[in-house]
Amino acid sequence: MKEVVDAIKAGDDFLIATHVNPDGDALGSAIALAMGLKSLGKKVSVYDRDGVPETYTFLPGQEIVLSDMTGVKAGTLILVDCNKPVRAGLSEDLKFKNTMVIDHHETDSDFGQVKWIDPAIPATGLMVFEILKSLDVALTTEMAQNIYTAIALDTGTFRYSNTTADALHAGAELIEAGASPGHVADKLYSNWGMNRFALFQAVLSNMDLCGDICFLSITRKMHKEFKTSEPDTENFVNFPLQIDSVRASVMLKELVSRKGWRVSMRSKGDINVADIAERCGGGGHRNAAGCNIEGTYEEAKGILIKELSSK
Amino acid sequence: MKEVVDAIKAGDDFLIATHVNPDGDALGSAIALAMGLKSLGKKVSVYDRDGVPETYTFLPGQEIVLSDMTGVKAGTLILVDCNKPVRAGLSEDLKFKNTMVIDHHETDSDFGQVKWIDPAIPATGLMVFEILKSLDVALTTEMAQNIYTAIALDTGTFRYSNTTADALHAGAELIEAGASPGHVADKLYSNWGMNRFALFQAVLSNMDLCGDICFLSITRKMHKEFKTSEPDTENFVNFPLQIDSVRASVMLKELVSRKGWRVSMRSKGDINVADIAERCGGGGHRNAAGCNIEGTYEEAKGILIKELSSK
Repeated sequence: MKEVVDAIKAGDDFLIATHVNPDGDALGSAIALAMGLKSLGKKVSVYDRDGVPETYTFLPGQEIVLSDMTGVKAGTLILVDCNKPVRAGLSEDLKFKNTMVIDHHETDSDFGQVKWIDPAIPATGLMVFEILKSLDVALTTEMAQNIYTAIALDTGTFRYSNTTADALHAGAELIEAGASPGHVADKLYSNWGMNRFALFQAVLSNMDLCGDICFLSITRKMHKEFKTSEPDTENFVNFPLQIDSVRASVMLKELVSRKGWRVSMRSKGDINVADIAERCGGGGHRNAAGCNIEGTYEEAKGILIKELSSK
Repeated sequence: MKEVVDAIKAGDDFLIATHVNPDGDALGSAIALAMGLKSLGKKVSVYDRDGVPETYTFLPGQEIVLSDMTGVKAGTLILVDCNKPVRAGLSEDLKFKNTMVIDHHETDSDFGQVKWIDPAIPATGLMVFEILKSLDVALTTEMAQNIYTAIALDTGTFRYSNTTADALHAGAELIEAGASPGHVADKLYSNWGMNRFALFQAVLSNMDLCGDICFLSITRKMHKEFKTSEPDTENFVNFPLQIDSVRASVMLKELVSRKGWRVSMRSKGDINVADIAERCGGGGHRNAAGCNIEGTYEEAKGILIKELSSK
């Protein structure tokens, strides 16, 4: 971490970029880091190609996030919650004097002059928390709420096996700094419209259990029928893990652009789905990863059953 | 708290009793407190009329819990997570030299010579944690796992609005003492048999939405059909709260013994369901309470809609 802190101290103008299709850890981390650096008098832009999804518009300061790079210039690029520019939807042609990576994903990359990458840390938000403390940034309520959201999202509010004592120590300090656990959980988990609920019921009734692997699927037709879209499917894939006999849960979402599926995988214990995702051109963590697979539903399912059964 | 700690120091033999139909906070608190007092050389029995439900048999040391009072004698009764003997299924005829209450429920009671009752504390487990620390008990992994479960259950793993910084500070210390957040969450939330899952789907498909109040119901016939029982319904009532427009969720479970319903209520924000439960002879917390109501489904629903609509 020290290298990252020193490089931030030395820099003046930053572009903080995070991954496409951003989640709470990506956005909370990027926004809080930007707020912290601004409080030290530095110039900061924040970029996410896909902008801020409806679910995360409650994050204080989220209006800082740009989804258009026109006119943005910065000496230092900081990738947050991802480790290569393409994951952030950034062109490889963009040049920066300095490049940094702050990430906790398992997948490899050569990118970044200065890096802090640690897959044992449950959320990038926790890394940003430590960095801001080392920089002597006075935590505001707004920063605290963003970081709390980041940690809560990636630990399932301290529920997943990645949860560490450090994550709870940080959570406690963030509450003391003004974060509101109930509010964050409400915004993350109690934000379903009735259409999303109807979609969930339909997904559940089509649940496809193959031994200890559970498949859920969402077609474009279903989204049309229920007037829902991609962000409405968040967390659906976690649901079947509640069944004691289910070791892995897979959600197949029909791609819009071509014949194939966006695959989200969740697993219990030692079943490493990041491995599988990486072999299919995706990435993630041991128990939560994603990739794209071409073909029909049955073809995709066949590939995944083969991969998962060998685990 | 000091009074309780002093009274424990002064006593030699204790009966720790907790409420009927016990949950993780009741059992985890009672077991950890018993372990702590035993480590100080005191004689301790633990009683719960209903014993330990299948869900909580993972709690280390749970075999200490008696569901039969035959032959049990103790100088001091400590009620944990409830505040009157009847809630623990104890006969009013039983006499003790000293009586104590450690509880965080809102409902009133005159019982107990020495009490620590604080509804602002999210879990009785957190109170037991503070008491054991004040008694200089060395926390074992087993105690930590019990207390962590207690706090996790009553805060929804730090998700409900009752979650405090103290709860997270304690959670972090408990992990350092050996508690395993992922294991606890797995045992609390990933323990559904396929029959329970089928029951949940049936409950969801019968969901009865009246404006911003959601009713779920489970009849004896459904339990027969799905080969399920009361403990299989745990947490079902929380599910509809995910819908943004739902302000209160009510689960009606048909009573076995007479014509009527066991009512579980959950609410968001300022809607105090403990009030309603208390008026109907039950109790609980502001956002989570329960009671029994006689009559048909429509009659019970009518009473509850009237009560909830005035909130």
